[in-house]
Amino acid sequence: MTQARPQRAPRTAPQVRREQLTRAALTAFAEHGYAGVELQAIADEVGVTRNLIHHYFPGGKSELHLAAVRLACAELVDMLDVDPGVALARKMPANVDAYLREILQPSARYMLYARALRSAEEDVRATAIEARSLIAAGTARNHLGTARPPAAVRAALVGFIAFTETTAEQWRDLGVRDQARLRALIMDVLVATVASASGA
Amino acid sequence: MTQARPQRAPRTAPQVRREQLTRAALTAFAEHGYAGVELQAIADEVGVTRNLIHHYFPGGKSELHLAAVRLACAELVDMLDVDPGVALARKMPANVDAYLREILQPSARYMLYARALRSAEEDVRATAIEARSLIAAGTARNHLGTARPPAAVRAALVGFIAFTETTAEQWRDLGVRDQARLRALIMDVLVATVASASGA
Repeated sequence: MTQARPQRAPRTAPQVRREQLTRAALTAFAEHGYAGVELQAIADEVGVTRNLIHHYFPGGKSELHLAAVRLACAELVDMLDVDPGVALARKMPANVDAYLREILQPSARYMLYARALRSAEEDVRATAIEARSLIAAGTARNHLGTARPPAAVRAALVGFIAFTETTAEQWRDLGVRDQARLRALIMDVLVATVASASGA
Repeated sequence: MTQARPQRAPRTAPQVRREQLTRAALTAFAEHGYAGVELQAIADEVGVTRNLIHHYFPGGKSELHLAAVRLACAELVDMLDVDPGVALARKMPANVDAYLREILQPSARYMLYARALRSAEEDVRATAIEARSLIAAGTARNHLGTARPPAAVRAALVGFIAFTETTAEQWRDLGVRDQARLRALIMDVLVATVASASGA
């Protein structure tokens, strides 16, 4: 007869642990800003030691922050429906509404992305700028059938994303309530931008 | 007979001296960024002592920087032609072209303003955000006859300024050459923004 092995709690897989830490960091950095976050608080939140954070993120706080910004940006980009099997008339309002909800509430990932756009850290800022370009590329794919239109169209669509973000932030900060009207405005400007930039 | 007074070089009036220092700072901060500027270099440029800078700007480098950002922003706002005696059909392309030139070259004042928009210093950032609001208000005045339209229209026009800046920056960075096409795009989007936001 074999002796029973002592029962141990199953260990969390490294990839899962890494994601838990990154997600906890995303929320913490969004709420408190870079300077306001202590690694110990994130360790406590996830139920691990501070040393384990350094094991996964040898660069410490700045590396964890960059990972959180990357996660936030990847989620914002992934939200966009670019399925060619879905009609534009259905995708466009849904995409605009989904993005507006992120800004008007705002979500932790949007807050982190928006702050990253203004970061003095080059790699943090580049991550956010790349996300904006990817959202513009997805928009091009939906409206023009290609994610790599001519440079002038790409420039215009990146500008359109900035328009959407800035207008919605102002809408929120000025206390305007009507999201349907904001959605209509964003769609009108999107249609005008695509038509003018692509020479349609 | 009265004795001749010894001749002395006329002293520079305080207001003039202050402006010289602020203008030299505007160029220096635009070119080298906040960290890259030394007060001694600005003093040498104007031909005064470092102590005199501290006399005019007791807060030192950060106060001089804020003064430079304010000057840059004031000049950008002042560029906008809001003369009600000039027809919109003449003012609009001229205003758009003038602003695009600032971005496409770019001018020192635009570089300082754009960097101020992303500053971690609250008063620096607020100065740039206020400038953007004032440019939006001037645009409202030209297109709608009032600098204080409803909040939704103000939000849309601030968004439009962000659209213009981001699109032109991308246009420049992607190496697109055709400024006339960019101007036409900006005007198309402006007309669409005003029409949709004001319910016209």
